[in-house]
Amino acid sequence: MSTSRWSTPASLALRVEPGFRLADIDPRSTPGYDGDKDAGKADLDAGREPLEGLQERLFAQSVAGTATGSVLLVLQAMDTAGKGGIVRHVVGAVDPQGVELASFKKPTAEELSHDFLWRIEKRLPDAGRLGVFDRSHYEDVLIGRVRALAPAPEIERRYGAIVAFEAQAAEMGIRVVKVMLHISKDEQRERLAERLDRPEKHWKYNPGDVDERQLWDDYMDAYQIAIERTSTPVAPWHVVPADRKWYARLAVQRLLIDALTHIEPQWPVADYDVEEEKLRLAAS
Amino acid sequence: MSTSRWSTPASLALRVEPGFRLADIDPRSTPGYDGDKDAGKADLDAGREPLEGLQERLFAQSVAGTATGSVLLVLQAMDTAGKGGIVRHVVGAVDPQGVELASFKKPTAEELSHDFLWRIEKRLPDAGRLGVFDRSHYEDVLIGRVRALAPAPEIERRYGAIVAFEAQAAEMGIRVVKVMLHISKDEQRERLAERLDRPEKHWKYNPGDVDERQLWDDYMDAYQIAIERTSTPVAPWHVVPADRKWYARLAVQRLLIDALTHIEPQWPVADYDVEEEKLRLAAS
Repeated sequence: MSTSRWSTPASLALRVEPGFRLADIDPRSTPGYDGDKDAGKADLDAGREPLEGLQERLFAQSVAGTATGSVLLVLQAMDTAGKGGIVRHVVGAVDPQGVELASFKKPTAEELSHDFLWRIEKRLPDAGRLGVFDRSHYEDVLIGRVRALAPAPEIERRYGAIVAFEAQAAEMGIRVVKVMLHISKDEQRERLAERLDRPEKHWKYNPGDVDERQLWDDYMDAYQIAIERTSTPVAPWHVVPADRKWYARLAVQRLLIDALTHIEPQWPVADYDVEEEKLRLAAS
Repeated sequence: MSTSRWSTPASLALRVEPGFRLADIDPRSTPGYDGDKDAGKADLDAGREPLEGLQERLFAQSVAGTATGSVLLVLQAMDTAGKGGIVRHVVGAVDPQGVELASFKKPTAEELSHDFLWRIEKRLPDAGRLGVFDRSHYEDVLIGRVRALAPAPEIERRYGAIVAFEAQAAEMGIRVVKVMLHISKDEQRERLAERLDRPEKHWKYNPGDVDERQLWDDYMDAYQIAIERTSTPVAPWHVVPADRKWYARLAVQRLLIDALTHIEPQWPVADYDVEEEKLRLAAS
């Protein structure tokens, strides 16, 4: 695969650094990448095989019982930013057997009766898997903050709880890749309008989407605070400009390839005598 | 998509009928299909979009809360028959968000302390989903019978319990598509040998595979009995010759397309006022 169109590795170009300001990031920009849409789509296609290959090695380790690492992609975004497209076009390239996808909806009564991390912890990926969180514990400091769904001191407590939780996950060998897909308010209007214009897209629209949209600035503030307070060396945030779908998909694919490359999964070594098994098989 | 190369619909060509004898089915045959490997691969590619489209409608219904049906693909086979390839190349074409994949391994101590259907019931697909069982409750009358893992009367009881369980699932709106991938003993030897020959495939091999292979005839008997006794109008078995991987994949894809077509999922109708929402959105 050609990576030459990345002038800066995606993980560096997108990682949140001290002093980060969400408002300074242009949702139409393509940080680190010099290609256009056609090049981006070609590179996305070219990246399917390396991603699949790395993930197969990781999965092989889990089957062999030798896996120590896993990857967890955390996807957060305003509505229509393209989480579903990432799941379909990026994650969809790898063997479904190795993927654990968790979509977090509005918490149930049972979930609300526990700490906010209770339902999250249960869905952490097993060793050797690629976990994907479509929304996550961050909802509890995003809509949770904007809509004051919990008392202010509880919201405050959660940032620290998240940092501790993710540090623990990292110690367990989970490489946490946190992604905010960042779209502009105008782009969201266009995408919502398209859903209203096309009857086969009506199911994707919810009147509540406009209610949340009316609190756009509050949400951007909540994202700024959450990203600032929970970006750590072991679990950094990446803000991925997402007005251009092709860029967002390409960038997340690169982040996953980088994370898997970092784990460096190797094909498991046989724990049986290969030559002896060849004889047994031939005789059977 | 061209379906003209199917002289008989897959579901009819493969469905088990009274008097069925597994031993009469040639694992290299391609029932109902007149094309060769190239045609089969082209048809498999052509089938991805209709399958994805049907499944998206079903998923849309589940999001809208109007789904009443779901599809459950039950995959059973001897080792190396290609279950993994079906998951990857057939199921892998649809949106991962709508798929619920359950791989049943050797039961845990906790699972063994319950009825054999206990762990199965928990993994039945929600309405609007495509469920896939990679192995299933049939293990309990296959390896269960061959290895005498339960007393004979208990094994006997299970056939009736399975029929009742699947009838109940069908009443809940689950369309159960049961598939046995049928390979020949010779083809299995070749595929196992390939795993032993290639270090990057060693993880797929297990010395136990040859142990089970040595009981091939017992397994075929157990399949014959299980298929005979559990093939019902609401949950028929399909025996899919699988020595030719391209045929097995194409056939299972057709079975899924047929099952989804039978459910006839429609795009959900908006439960909000579309014109009013357009105004609200424009003003936001």
